[in-house]
Amino acid sequence: MVALTDIHGPDDLRLLDAAQLSDLAQQIREFLVREVSRTGGHLGPNLGVVELTMAVHRVFQSPHDQIVFDTGHQCYVHKLLTGRQDFTALKQQGGLSGYPSRAESEHDIVESSHASSSLSWADGLAKANQLTGRGDRHVVAVVGDGALTGGMTWEAINNIAVGQERNLVIVVNDNERSYAPTIGGLSERLATLRTLNSYEKALDLGKSVLQRGGTPGRLAYGTLHGMKKGIKDIVAPQGLFEDLGIKYVGPVDGHDLEAMEFALGRAKSFGGPVIVHAITEKGRGYAPARNDQADQFHAIGVIDPETGKAVSSGSGGQKWTSVFAEEIVRIADERPDVVGITAAMLIPVGLHRFAERYPDRVFDVGIAEQHAVTSAAGMAHGGLHPVVAVYATFINRAFDQVLMDVALHREGVTFVLDRAGVTGDDGASHNGMWDLSLLGLVPGIRIAAPRDAVRLRELLREAVAVEDGPTVLRFQKGQVAAEVPAVEQVNGMDVVHREGSEDVLVVAVGSMTGLGLAVAEGLNQQGIGVTVVDPRWVLPVNEALPELAARHQLVVVVEDGGVAGGVATHVAATLSALRVPTAVRGFGIPQQFLDHASRAQVLEQIGLTAQEVSREVVEHFSRQAEFALEDVPRA
Amino acid sequence: MVALTDIHGPDDLRLLDAAQLSDLAQQIREFLVREVSRTGGHLGPNLGVVELTMAVHRVFQSPHDQIVFDTGHQCYVHKLLTGRQDFTALKQQGGLSGYPSRAESEHDIVESSHASSSLSWADGLAKANQLTGRGDRHVVAVVGDGALTGGMTWEAINNIAVGQERNLVIVVNDNERSYAPTIGGLSERLATLRTLNSYEKALDLGKSVLQRGGTPGRLAYGTLHGMKKGIKDIVAPQGLFEDLGIKYVGPVDGHDLEAMEFALGRAKSFGGPVIVHAITEKGRGYAPARNDQADQFHAIGVIDPETGKAVSSGSGGQKWTSVFAEEIVRIADERPDVVGITAAMLIPVGLHRFAERYPDRVFDVGIAEQHAVTSAAGMAHGGLHPVVAVYATFINRAFDQVLMDVALHREGVTFVLDRAGVTGDDGASHNGMWDLSLLGLVPGIRIAAPRDAVRLRELLREAVAVEDGPTVLRFQKGQVAAEVPAVEQVNGMDVVHREGSEDVLVVAVGSMTGLGLAVAEGLNQQGIGVTVVDPRWVLPVNEALPELAARHQLVVVVEDGGVAGGVATHVAATLSALRVPTAVRGFGIPQQFLDHASRAQVLEQIGLTAQEVSREVVEHFSRQAEFALEDVPRA
Repeated sequence: MVALTDIHGPDDLRLLDAAQLSDLAQQIREFLVREVSRTGGHLGPNLGVVELTMAVHRVFQSPHDQIVFDTGHQCYVHKLLTGRQDFTALKQQGGLSGYPSRAESEHDIVESSHASSSLSWADGLAKANQLTGRGDRHVVAVVGDGALTGGMTWEAINNIAVGQERNLVIVVNDNERSYAPTIGGLSERLATLRTLNSYEKALDLGKSVLQRGGTPGRLAYGTLHGMKKGIKDIVAPQGLFEDLGIKYVGPVDGHDLEAMEFALGRAKSFGGPVIVHAITEKGRGYAPARNDQADQFHAIGVIDPETGKAVSSGSGGQKWTSVFAEEIVRIADERPDVVGITAAMLIPVGLHRFAERYPDRVFDVGIAEQHAVTSAAGMAHGGLHPVVAVYATFINRAFDQVLMDVALHREGVTFVLDRAGVTGDDGASHNGMWDLSLLGLVPGIRIAAPRDAVRLRELLREAVAVEDGPTVLRFQKGQVAAEVPAVEQVNGMDVVHREGSEDVLVVAVGSMTGLGLAVAEGLNQQGIGVTVVDPRWVLPVNEALPELAARHQLVVVVEDGGVAGGVATHVAATLSALRVPTAVRGFGIPQQFLDHASRAQVLEQIGLTAQEVSREVVEHFSRQAEFALEDVPRA
Repeated sequence: MVALTDIHGPDDLRLLDAAQLSDLAQQIREFLVREVSRTGGHLGPNLGVVELTMAVHRVFQSPHDQIVFDTGHQCYVHKLLTGRQDFTALKQQGGLSGYPSRAESEHDIVESSHASSSLSWADGLAKANQLTGRGDRHVVAVVGDGALTGGMTWEAINNIAVGQERNLVIVVNDNERSYAPTIGGLSERLATLRTLNSYEKALDLGKSVLQRGGTPGRLAYGTLHGMKKGIKDIVAPQGLFEDLGIKYVGPVDGHDLEAMEFALGRAKSFGGPVIVHAITEKGRGYAPARNDQADQFHAIGVIDPETGKAVSSGSGGQKWTSVFAEEIVRIADERPDVVGITAAMLIPVGLHRFAERYPDRVFDVGIAEQHAVTSAAGMAHGGLHPVVAVYATFINRAFDQVLMDVALHREGVTFVLDRAGVTGDDGASHNGMWDLSLLGLVPGIRIAAPRDAVRLRELLREAVAVEDGPTVLRFQKGQVAAEVPAVEQVNGMDVVHREGSEDVLVVAVGSMTGLGLAVAEGLNQQGIGVTVVDPRWVLPVNEALPELAARHQLVVVVEDGGVAGGVATHVAATLSALRVPTAVRGFGIPQQFLDHASRAQVLEQIGLTAQEVSREVVEHFSRQAEFALEDVPRA
């Protein structure tokens, strides 16, 4: 038998015989359970693509052939097979990325973790290959059935279909789920395909093999054998894709390496665009994942590999998401017009309790943010109040719909943006650092950022009460910040700290209030007076803020969002328009892509800490003092 | 016979007999040709939906039933049938909107002219009807085959399919085109449906009827008659849609009112979601439109109704688009790696000459901006340099793709944004007022705004030379601005005017240079010194700008884009970070939706005129003078 550590690249994989491959698959699964248990990560999806990834790497020659993973969290096996086997610091600073990374390997192409983009990348790569005289290369897109619910894939398939001369293989990794079970007409169609008799036979056989741990003879290769296994019909064009002009191979048992290689080989030899439909099981081979009804260990924290139980991190506080999940149910009890919309993330965004209680009033639209937003506009026009709950980074997908369908039509839709701000370990494409700047461009929008659980509940109620335009609530990932009481209220804003003279006004956006208070403490100790205000509704700028600002020497805005176009720029523009001369200093996320690291590490790197903010404020005042000295008339 | 002017609403329409209806259709076509010739507007699309719209209004009861028009420029007939027959000021200030308008009529629901959204609106409306106990209402979405190439429609269909209990009729207005001929696998599939024998017969019969001008007997109603006409097979489920679980009726001759009513009636009585596939001809009944190979008079200016020839407006200067169209061909001659991408707008964005010369190097992806952008990223990674040419307002559809696929991966892709700034008469959703603020959020992006034809050519060449990230060129609709020579160059910026002392630095974005010069002239006359600089590359802020700004008393930024997050805010932030104390005043488009009117009228309304800018600058200086007086030490 060969050891996983002897596999340095795809070439090594191609030298193995069936028994060695079967053993290797087992080693990979053991590796994934052992290692990802220690670091956390996307375990379930990767356990589901062990054989699929091995087959792709045996049939195609990466990097000559180009492999694009959709929503790259399914790339762990790919990493193991392309020379990256040190998972000790997975998703940690300096360690492997949880997604493909061009910096790590020439085998990686697409780094972004936003779903449904792989077919468009693949179409572009195939067009380039054709035009640059490298049409012999194959482009392989590995895409989940969940990602197929995203509109981009339809746009891509429509274009791929007319490029019959371009080598492009679409491997549909069909596990009947994205994060959540895949929804819609498409999933029902795929279900029909799944039940074809050829597949039933293949799956049964595949299962029996895997349960026996792999028998060399059964995995001997060859077309004949492959056909005997019941896959002689796999080259049967099937309605949905065939209608659009793309050849179809499948369905194939994605855990049967032999069948997968046979299907991929057929697809490769066809030439032109071909879909290979592979049926897989998320969490395959690991009982705790298979038994997890919620999401088959889609993404886990640190767990005990034996039991699959979470290893307590000691900080068992309530999460922002849970507070929302509780409150939206209470609101739903009182308001029959309130409905929920999720884009394939029912539990992660906290709409599951609402859905359990009122199944008819929560809609999972698939990975389809555009439809989530515009169908919400329709529902609002029809007399409902939709609450669209998505991760902050994914609202980028539906800017035009928020602008043109919700705001232009003044529909009462509430957006709840979870995972706003720096999330850290998932890397550049998961940070929620664009929403404030982006949605701040939308006329008539109102954006709130709760600083603690009490405010989240309050602001959610205020948001769903607005019926003439879009409202937004944005909060962070993880545990809810400690409660901070108001010491005073000014026109709906909470003043949470006042000490000393009115030197500095700290405007704290949402949970950055904690940082604002720490800054205040530091400055107070140095004799600088500070007022800290949480505006609660951060955009548009509160009408009473300019007057408050005018009484201070300096306004400091701290926000967990991009500085470009963020709240600070709106505050500065408002003061400028009203000719309030107080200077504004904004502290937020620089407009750059952030490498993966812990949230604390990222904040440290970008200087979004109490120490750094205080230091800059003190520097500001000492510079002012110097100027003042210079201004003293020389006698 | 009944006169068109006797039709005050859909109820009146339902009282008519076949002969009257046929005559009315003829009157409507004559009205459209006569009126739209005078004002300009979307003539071709509306000539194609005369019978279709009449049938929809006879079979369904608007506003009880809800009709949503996709890309609302096909709503003129709908307007005529719902009490709006004064087209004298179509698209002009105070006149009818060129799109549906809630302010005009209770029969209008969706105002936005961005394509592919209607099915999502319809899904939302149908869900609301069901949940609010009004499930007897029907929702009717009228959508072109072109709009079906947009991913939103796929997301919507996937969701609509699972709502079998909701009354929702999708009327596919299939004229084989959007603006341009519809592309992709979908269009080929639709072509297959079109050639089914049932349709052939229906079309032939329909044609003969229309050529005879309508014979009462032939248009007698009744199921039997309808079936005799060869549409007995119209309720034949067809692959593509049926695969997704949506019933299919068609294809139907969209110009055969009887057939259309029969099909719509069947769809209505089915209940649940149903697609009615109607075949229509853009420009139907008007020879100049039918004979126009380019776009069948999709959108026209003022024309002679007899000949269809444009009535010269006297201002025959070259357009921005033409300059781009010429230069991109020259570049393509020199650089075989340069390719073009359009989202169903080959001619309007000026890629047609490139496509004629190098048909393999220009890709029309359909109304699919997301795919346009991400496939461009793939092509760039494959060694090409794609030029994605779209209207500025439509890049809103692909923000996430510019950010995550192009910028994060540092792919060399050039975006050419036509119709940037206030376009005016097409109303709120066509103004290109978001692109600068939106794309300004993208790390590493470089945005240029040419002030004249010379600069457009120069900057386009500079843009396609950049291979490590996205570049953008944005320019206006219409005739190219007069050439303005540089009097001096500063680090790549063109100083175009210098007079008097360094009081005001006008930073002019692109063609606003003309306004900048007019402002300078006015201020110079009042003794205020002005420097006018066109930075050419407006974002990121030129490194030499702060020093130039520091020498002046005031920086004025004039831009044809939203003030929120626009160039002025970036200039202000840069000066602030470098502690340059010069005040910055930004003049641009307020962040609000603008009613349709001419560009000049809109600019006047929002104060984006030389007079208004000058007035505010003078006011600024007189206020400064007052402060200065107050600051004089009292002896």
